[in-house]
This record gives sequence, C-alpha cells and structure tokens, in this order.
Amino acid sequence: MAALTTRSGGAFDRVPFDALLKRRLFFTPSFEIYRTASGFAGDTKGLFDYGPPGCALQANLVDTWRKHFVLEENMLELDCTVLTPEDVFKTSGHVDKFSDWMCKDSKNGDYLRADHLIENVLEARLKGDKAARGIAAAEEKDTSNDPAAAKKKKRAVKDVKVVKLDDAVAKEFEEILARIDNYDGLELGALIKKFDIRNPDGNNEVLPPVPFNLMFKTSIGPSSGSIGYLRPETAQGQFVNFKKLLEFNQNTMPFASASIGKSYRNEISPRTGILRVREFLMAEVEHFVDPEGGKKHDRFEDIDKIELVLLDRHTQLAGSTEIKVMTVGEAVRSHVIDNETLGYFLARIHLFFQKIGVDPKKVRFRQHMANEMAHYAADCWDGELLTSYGWIECVGCADRSAYDLSVHSKRTGEALVVREPREEPLRIEEWQVDIDKKKLGPKFRKNAKAVEEAIEALSQEQRERFEQTLNKDGAINIDIPGLPEGKAELDKALIQIVRRTRVENIREYTPNVIEPSFGIGRIFYSLLEHVYWHRPGDVARGVLSIPPLVAPSKVLIVPLSRSPGFASHVKKLSARLRTLGISHTVDDSSASIGKRYSRNDELGTPFGITVDFDSLKDDTITLRERDSMKQIRASVDDVLGAVVSLVNGSELWTDVLKRLPEFLGQSEDE
Amino acid sequence: MAALTTRSGGAFDRVPFDALLKRRLFFTPSFEIYRTASGFAGDTKGLFDYGPPGCALQANLVDTWRKHFVLEENMLELDCTVLTPEDVFKTSGHVDKFSDWMCKDSKNGDYLRADHLIENVLEARLKGDKAARGIAAAEEKDTSNDPAAAKKKKRAVKDVKVVKLDDAVAKEFEEILARIDNYDGLELGALIKKFDIRNPDGNNEVLPPVPFNLMFKTSIGPSSGSIGYLRPETAQGQFVNFKKLLEFNQNTMPFASASIGKSYRNEISPRTGILRVREFLMAEVEHFVDPEGGKKHDRFEDIDKIELVLLDRHTQLAGSTEIKVMTVGEAVRSHVIDNETLGYFLARIHLFFQKIGVDPKKVRFRQHMANEMAHYAADCWDGELLTSYGWIECVGCADRSAYDLSVHSKRTGEALVVREPREEPLRIEEWQVDIDKKKLGPKFRKNAKAVEEAIEALSQEQRERFEQTLNKDGAINIDIPGLPEGKAELDKALIQIVRRTRVENIREYTPNVIEPSFGIGRIFYSLLEHVYWHRPGDVARGVLSIPPLVAPSKVLIVPLSRSPGFASHVKKLSARLRTLGISHTVDDSSASIGKRYSRNDELGTPFGITVDFDSLKDDTITLRERDSMKQIRASVDDVLGAVVSLVNGSELWTDVLKRLPEFLGQSEDE
Repeated sequence: MAALTTRSGGAFDRVPFDALLKRRLFFTPSFEIYRTASGFAGDTKGLFDYGPPGCALQANLVDTWRKHFVLEENMLELDCTVLTPEDVFKTSGHVDKFSDWMCKDSKNGDYLRADHLIENVLEARLKGDKAARGIAAAEEKDTSNDPAAAKKKKRAVKDVKVVKLDDAVAKEFEEILARIDNYDGLELGALIKKFDIRNPDGNNEVLPPVPFNLMFKTSIGPSSGSIGYLRPETAQGQFVNFKKLLEFNQNTMPFASASIGKSYRNEISPRTGILRVREFLMAEVEHFVDPEGGKKHDRFEDIDKIELVLLDRHTQLAGSTEIKVMTVGEAVRSHVIDNETLGYFLARIHLFFQKIGVDPKKVRFRQHMANEMAHYAADCWDGELLTSYGWIECVGCADRSAYDLSVHSKRTGEALVVREPREEPLRIEEWQVDIDKKKLGPKFRKNAKAVEEAIEALSQEQRERFEQTLNKDGAINIDIPGLPEGKAELDKALIQIVRRTRVENIREYTPNVIEPSFGIGRIFYSLLEHVYWHRPGDVARGVLSIPPLVAPSKVLIVPLSRSPGFASHVKKLSARLRTLGISHTVDDSSASIGKRYSRNDELGTPFGITVDFDSLKDDTITLRERDSMKQIRASVDDVLGAVVSLVNGSELWTDVLKRLPEFLGQSEDE
Repeated sequence: MAALTTRSGGAFDRVPFDALLKRRLFFTPSFEIYRTASGFAGDTKGLFDYGPPGCALQANLVDTWRKHFVLEENMLELDCTVLTPEDVFKTSGHVDKFSDWMCKDSKNGDYLRADHLIENVLEARLKGDKAARGIAAAEEKDTSNDPAAAKKKKRAVKDVKVVKLDDAVAKEFEEILARIDNYDGLELGALIKKFDIRNPDGNNEVLPPVPFNLMFKTSIGPSSGSIGYLRPETAQGQFVNFKKLLEFNQNTMPFASASIGKSYRNEISPRTGILRVREFLMAEVEHFVDPEGGKKHDRFEDIDKIELVLLDRHTQLAGSTEIKVMTVGEAVRSHVIDNETLGYFLARIHLFFQKIGVDPKKVRFRQHMANEMAHYAADCWDGELLTSYGWIECVGCADRSAYDLSVHSKRTGEALVVREPREEPLRIEEWQVDIDKKKLGPKFRKNAKAVEEAIEALSQEQRERFEQTLNKDGAINIDIPGLPEGKAELDKALIQIVRRTRVENIREYTPNVIEPSFGIGRIFYSLLEHVYWHRPGDVARGVLSIPPLVAPSKVLIVPLSRSPGFASHVKKLSARLRTLGISHTVDDSSASIGKRYSRNDELGTPFGITVDFDSLKDDTITLRERDSMKQIRASVDDVLGAVVSLVNGSELWTDVLKRLPEFLGQSEDE
C-alpha cells in the first residue's frame, strides 16, 4: 500500500495527529484516573469518552445523518431499549452465533482473539522475512548521519525476528492473511498448531480456540432467572415493532424505519483506539420492501448517474483489490449490485460521506464474499474508508432477505406480514380436505383437536396421495404423534379430499429488508484522519479542515483586548450569532491572536471573527477562514450574513472573497 | 387534591389520553410481541420504545435542552460510557447504598418493593375507611339513572375492603404515608409486621425486607473477574474527567460540564408507565464552583426577578404543602434557597419548562427534607410537574458539596483540585519538622521511609506537643506501625521542630458541585399530559398542543386531490420547507381532510398547509393553526414566511391572523 497522504499532499503521521486529538479532548480513554490507581482491577479497554469538540462533532454527524436519511425519506425513527431479553437474541441467532474465537495463554492466563493472534504473528514473520531478504533495508534511506533515525531503524528490526522464510511458506502466509476473516475455530486451531503460533507477549503456547459470545449479559428484574443482553446492534428493536410501524405508515409499502443509539460488543481484546470499542454509537436503517418485482426503488433515477468506487466479489475471488468505477445505474443493470434498492442506498451513503467531508479518494464499496455473508443474505456491501489502520468498514449495507421478520414471527406466532388487495384475484387449484366434525368429535374425544391439526397440516403432495388411497381403500392412516397409538384411521365418512379452485383476493408476504448500518464512531475517526493536515513545514501547527456543516463550533470570536468596550461588543455579536442559530465560542484569553487561532485550527473551527480597535470605532469586524487563513473586513451585518451562507452551504469562501474586501492587517504570528 | 383539569378547563381523563398515545405510537412497551409468546419467560417490564412522534419530540426536547443549557452557558459537553467498572461505583457509594428494600412473597415468590407495598396496602385501607364512613358515597353523585356509573362505583367499592378504622389508626396511616420515603429496611419490616401487611395479590405473608441493588451488573472483557455496571446516572463520568475538563477550560473557574445519555436502574417492580422505567434518558449538568465566597453566580442578575413556586423544607416539616411564590432573588437573600448558583439553576430550569410548553400552574420546586438528602449535600430541590399520577420529580437540583471529587481523588490518588495564584499571598504560622536525612537513613535503613512518612503525617497539635517533649527530654517516641517495635525514638540530632511562617502563593481547593439532573422521559410524559385536551364535547377528537419549538413535526401538507398536478405542487412545497429547515410530513392519503387534520392534531403538528384546486390556479395555499383551527390564505411565499416566524417564535399565530387574510372556505368536517 502506498503511504497515506494528507490533503496538503504530505505524508500522514499518526503521532502528531493522536497528540492533537488528545490535547483538544476529542476523545479520551474512559476512567483513565482509575487505570493507574493502586489495586484497580477493572477492565476499561475499548471504552472511550468524547470530550467537548468530539461530542459536538458527533452530535453534528448524527444530526446530518438524521436529515440526510430520516427526514429526506420520511423514515420512521424509533428509539428502542438497549436491554433485551434473552429470547429475542436466541431467535435472531445472536446467542448461538455472535461469537469470536478466543485462545487462552497456557501460562499467564491472557485471553487473545484467535484470528488477531495469527494475523499479528504471521505479519511479524513476513516482516522478519523481508528484513532478512534486505528489502526492508533497501527501502530505508541511509541513516548513518541521523542517530535518531538509526535508532528507530534498529528498534524496528529488533521488534521482529529477522528470519528468512521459504518462498512457499511466505506465499502461504500471505494467502492465510488474505482470508483470515473466513476461518472457523477448528481451522484457526489447526493454523496455530501447524505454525507453532504463540502469544508474542511471553512466547507461551496458547490453548485451542473456544467461542466467546460478544454480548454483554445481565439480569433484568429482581429474579436472577430473567437473563438479558445489551444489544449488539439496534436492528432487532425495529424488527419486533414491524407490525406497529406498518400500521403507523397507514399500511403502505415500502417504508423504512431508523434508529440511532448505543450498541455493545464485549470485544476480547480491543485495540486500534476508537475503531474497535465495546460501547459505540450506531445508526441503522431497516428498509422494508416487497421481495417481488426486483426490489425497485422509486427514487432510483435521482441517483442513477452517481459514480461509485466498487470492489466486487469476483475481483476479490481472483485475489485482486482492483477497483471499478461505475455509475450505480450501470452496476445494478449489470448485476454487480443485486438490486435497485440496495444500489439506491449505496449511492445515498456515498452522498452522505461527501456531505460530511470524507476524502473522496479514500472511499470504496467492497462486496462481501459469499462465505462472509450470513446464509440468508442476498448481497452485502461495506462502505470502507481508508485510514492509517487500513481500509475500515464504516457502513454495512446488506440485503437481509425475509430472515429477521420470519424468525421473530415464527417464534412469537405474530404475523409480521403485509396484506395487500390483489389487483387481479389469484386462482389456485389445490387439494382441500373436508372434515365432518360432527363425527370427528365423538370418535376421537379429547384427541379430536390433534387429529384435526394433523389433517390440516398435510402438504399438497400428501393430500394427493391420500386422495388416491381413500378412493381405493375407503380409509387412510395418518401419523399423529399426540395419540397413544401414534396414528389414526380415518374413513370416507369422516373426511373427503377434493380438488378445488381457491380464489385469493388478498396477497400476503413477508417483506425483505435492506439494512444500511452505520458505525458513527468509525466514521467520526476516519473523517478526522481525512481532514487532518499541518501548515507547510510546521508539524506543530495542525489543522482539522472539518466542513462547516459538521464542525464542532462554527465561529470563534477573538477580542484583541480584554477591556470592557470589547466585552460589550463581543456580547452583542454572540447574541446575534445565537439568534441566527450559529454555534460559536469566545476566546478572550490573554494568549496572542496567533495562538488563539492555532488552537481553533486544531479544534476544526472554520471561521474566526476578530474584534479589534477599529471595530469599536467603525463597527467593522474581520472574518478569517481556517484553511486559507485569508481574512475579509466588513460591517458586522455583512460578515454575519456571509457566515450564515457559508455555514448553510449556499456560498463558498471563494465567493465571499470575491464580494467582500480582503483584509491584510493582522499577522497570524503576532 | 382537586381534580386535574386540561387546558380547555375540562377534567383530565387518562383513558382516552393513553389510547391516543398508543394509537399514534408515541411510545410502546418493548418486545410486546414476545410478552404473549408461548414459553417466553423474559422480564420486559419498565422497558419502552419510542415511536416516530415520540422519538421526534424527545429529540426536540434534547435539542432545546442543549441550546438552553449547554450552548447558552458554554458548558463542556461529554459523552461518557454507560459501562463502568465496579471500583468507580464502590468509590461513589453506589455499590453499597444504591438499593431499594424488597420483600418476597412467602408462597408465590413474587418480589415487591417494600415501601410501595406498604403504601398500596395502607392507601387501600384508608379508602375502605372512607367508604365505611360514607364519605366516598357522599362524594359520588347519584348514579341511579346511569348504569355505567353505578357499575363503576360498585367496582370501586369492591376493590377495597369497606372497614372503618379507629381515628387514631387512620391518623397513623396518614403520617406513615407522608414519610414513606424515609424509612430504612428494619423500620419497613416493623411496619409490615405491626399492620400485618400482605401481598394484595393472593394475600400471602411477605418475608422481611432485604436490600436489592438497583444497578445492572455485567462482566467486562473475557475474564469473568472484571465486574462492570450500567451507570444509574451520567454524573460519575463527568467527575472522573474533571482534571481534563479543567485543563480544556484553560484552568478557569467556574465552569460546567454536561452529559445527555441513557442510564439504567433495575427497578424491582416498575409501574406507572414510562414514569418509572429501567432504561431512561438523562441530561445532567455538573457546575463546578469555588466553595468560598458564597457560591455567587455572575449571571444571577439576569434571573433575580423571576418568580418561582416553592415548597420549602420548613413548610413540609410542619405537615403542610402550602406553596410560596417568590422571586429567586428574595429566596436566596432570605436563605430559603442556599446560594446564588443553586438559585440560578432553579430559575433556568423554570425557564426551560416554560420554553417547552409545560403548564405553569402545574410546576413547583420542592426542597428536600434533611433526612431525604445525602449526608454531604448542602441543599437540594426537585422540579416537580403535576400529572394524573400526582407530583412527579422531573428534575433534581442538588448542591453536592465537594463529595464526588473528594472520594474519587482519595481512591485514585489523582489531585482533583483547582490551583489558583492568590492575589495576596497567604502567610501561615505553623510547626515545621526538619529531619536530618543523612542520619535518618543509616539509623533506620529500610525503615527510613516509613519513619519519615510518619513524621510528615504529624498534625499541628502533635507537633506542638512533641516540640515541648523534645526540648524537655531531648528525644521523642513516635508510633510507627510499619516497624517491628511499632515505634521509634528520635533525638534532637535527628529532628528539629520549629515554628515558622509559610507563605502560600497558590490556593488549592476542591470545587463544589451544583448538579441539575433531568429525567427527559418524565418531562416528556408530563408535558404530554399538560398539552392534552379534546375538542369541546368530543372526547374522540384529542389534541396535543405541543409548542412549535418542540413539536415532532411542524407542518402537515395536505393535498386535496391525488392527481399529478397536486403531487408536483406538494413536491415543490416540501423541498422549500426542507431548505428552510422546517420538518414536515405529507399526508396524501384518500382520507377526508377533516380526518387527516384530526390525525395530526393527535400527533401535535401545529400547522397544516392545504393545497386545493385554487392553489393550482393562483399559487395560494391555506395555513391552518392546530389549537384554534383557524386558517389564513395567502401566497406560498407569505405562508412559508409566516411558518418560519411561527416556528422560530418571532411571531405568534394571533400576529399572523392580523396581517394575513383569514380563510373560511373549507370545513374540518368535510
């Protein structure tokens, strides 16, 4: 993979980036003061708190998401509980299958996620192999005159054992890594054994992988018998409410529900910062659609021409990661994407990414391989964003067929279906059974109901066969498990089997579900990487070029002096911005203006208003744009008007620069 | 208590109100399809999902809260995890004390909350007493000509045993009920025994009360040893981040943090609908203030003159519920409210209630009695809203002193304090101990550190006494638990105790915390009761007069016909409203216009736009206001302009009626 570059063209460096996020409290490990406390044994890994700018950015992403999806498409938003009784997740399959494979260190008791363990060890061996072959050395520049770089290089080589591998082994490792997500527990165990994979921390052997369910378990109510789980996704709450939603939607199809809320996964060993966490914010859509008629979408033409970057299943199967750029319309018509509704949502996800400021060169949609998908899924694509940790799955968009509604319906006995009058009545030729109930009751007494149910349950094929027997022998024998003898004899006087035409005026079907599912925290983090850069030649002056739409705060007001005249000016400005609905902050600290702007570049604040000594005289103020650092000077009315149109997106900074006079007075370095 | 009335002056009736909320899916019991499923043993009580209008109303309440508190006061918003390691709640006291008293039915195994059990039984007995005394009968009107009322009356009498009580016993019951919140487990057990209180469901005896901790317990990470809880409040996450928040705030005081998020309480036996639930949304502020100087607030003058309805501690102690109406300023200056900051927030809470449309006649602030508060709390007031369930605590506003920061600091060893340069250096006369470390080390070897720590830990009083002994005897004996002998002799050569003046330039203090804590679900429900009424004489035509600011949807667009000409008109209107940021819905169903407006009255949509046949000709539309049902007719531009100013609150409907022509064309009953 080529080195990751920032928007200014420089190489992305995670060290100053992480330092910036920490310094500005975008997020922070939860309960950090406890982690170092003596005697503290709690596990706080994979738990993060969002600080003020992170919280505001997250709220703005959620708000944009709600407008882009829920309001734009009149989706029915739900807020369902996180606490969920066990039975619901038994039905959905989570109790049995929502697990990762886990190995225990045979000596120190560490728990390791089996696939990550193999991945780490094989990657390290490949690195050692490269070093041994001199490739790593050749790639590094001469460090003889740079002690720090030489030290770093030495450390890099120290981290891995420099051992040359057989060509065949190296190739096998590469192949295993490429499909590491697809092994089950036995296969992972076999790999561990075959390659003598040990815990890198201490080099102990590990025990064979066992499944570890990722749901947090608790007990609901005072009786310990009522097991509950924290939901690992918001979807089930939407499915179990399907009937009420359909009714709320006045029984019209298609429609979508949506939920924004926390979900929980008890990761075995969380790493990679906030990309893999135990508590996270999700936003999910469940779009319910008629399975017949090709899952068309009536707004498809709106997005037909949008170009997407696709990595399809066939390409991956051929061992390649080569992308295809094609319009959604082409992709659906050529069956790269399964259907219109799925294609529609991929395009809407693409537009959402654009709106929030994701780097378009760092987006792709990757199709799931057949063995990656649940057996019921018809098709599935991940919206992936490129970060310094590689391509990160930020959105999943799956066609889940009728699976979810079917299993909940079966378990609860509640019909989760759509009933629609047919335009043309449907005529069905079928075998029907007529039972003479007056005779059935007296003959079977308390077993009559079981007998009747067994008869009703006969398939068309069975009915056809029994009809022949009945005509031939005058009676039939039917298996009835409930009866003492296990079966019953029924004669012509009791039942008749006849072929008739049934006319069906109502069509009944279980809708299919297209599910775009967003990990807000992963989008949040990837976006921050995409918008991060630093002023040319000065790594200490970081900038987060977050678009005004989602920026934590839109405007910073900077008074040049702390005297009372300035304060009243600032108060008036602040009140006017509040009325305009523009979130803003005031920095009246004694730091230099350059320092104050630098701080806000790091916070991603797109605009700065300076109140200087001239402001008090002529009521003009200056407006600074974060990315270009250019300023204009105009009346308060003109500047606030420009801010409104910049924030709501009706004008760009380049437009404003053309119509309002540029200001070259202050220097950032003051 | 007088009967509750609606805004139209009629009696509030919970039956049609509940039916409306259910019909319009404001909220619904979670997992309802499972509750009736065969074999389902899950406990889903106290869990509710919010449907589309409930979700939107909740989001708008949260948005208004964020603007009113967080943005208005530049609070530092945090989003902390719900999952919390056990140690944090051990420190805060929740593991030991966050419990309710629970009784088990001796036969059927039901669990009952002890105070609620006593309350229910004593209330029923008092009701039976009243019936026996003929009071209930006298209060009921003659029902001889109304079979339904007569039946209801009979049922009411059937529910309770009609038994006359001794006057003294009735009085004792009243007194117990008045202080039912204040008994501990032993006292509750004694009451149950004394009055032979049994489970009303089956009349079985109950076992003595045991404490039941209300926190949901789980295990974090793969090792089952790491216990975690779901937070029962958002506060602790804010306290443990105090140091980072202070730094983010550039080390200036006072400041406030805020959090909006779910919290969890494992209620023993939830009842009263969404007022007592196991998963709920909270919004909490932690305002950190200097304990010295009377906890002044620099914006106090903004709210000094606001009148509050207060029920203070002294009034309650005298057995009365008589309210006092006084300005915040008066209340603080006369020490009814402890300090300015607490008073400031009570006023801000009052303004928030006003803003969202709470009925001002159904608000009061009730002060906690001394025995209701935690031992460390300085003062506490509940913002209560009157509902058909009585006065409901919707906001708690407590002065928690320095308790929380102190305990976390003590447990973790992290200094959670503010350090400020003193304007005037502080000169402190004190006894200081000088140790000759060159001699101490060789003498005590590995115990030297323990000896030194014991010396440093000596109080001023001890030092003064030891100074005299040292002068007199030339040596002192100090208790040192770590040493084999348990003490050490120290002579003049080793230590000197001298009185000196220390100059302190830095002041260090632990801030006090004022904590306004909002139960969003309770406010949500109480508000709905307050805004509910029905059209005169027609209980089937309910209206929710939710103010435009928080209404789930602001505008309903109703096309009179489903022909294509109307559709394109509606599409254009919809796009314009979207650009204006006005949430709206379209109802193009075939229902009559009256039915469609009725439906939206129930959803609380304040405005309706009708597109009729004239609209297609002259581009005018009509605008209907929900509460008055009056309409105006004007151009699209004028109507949309009016909608914007109505929604953002810059104009009232009465203003619009004056300046735009009223329309009397359509009838609601069409």
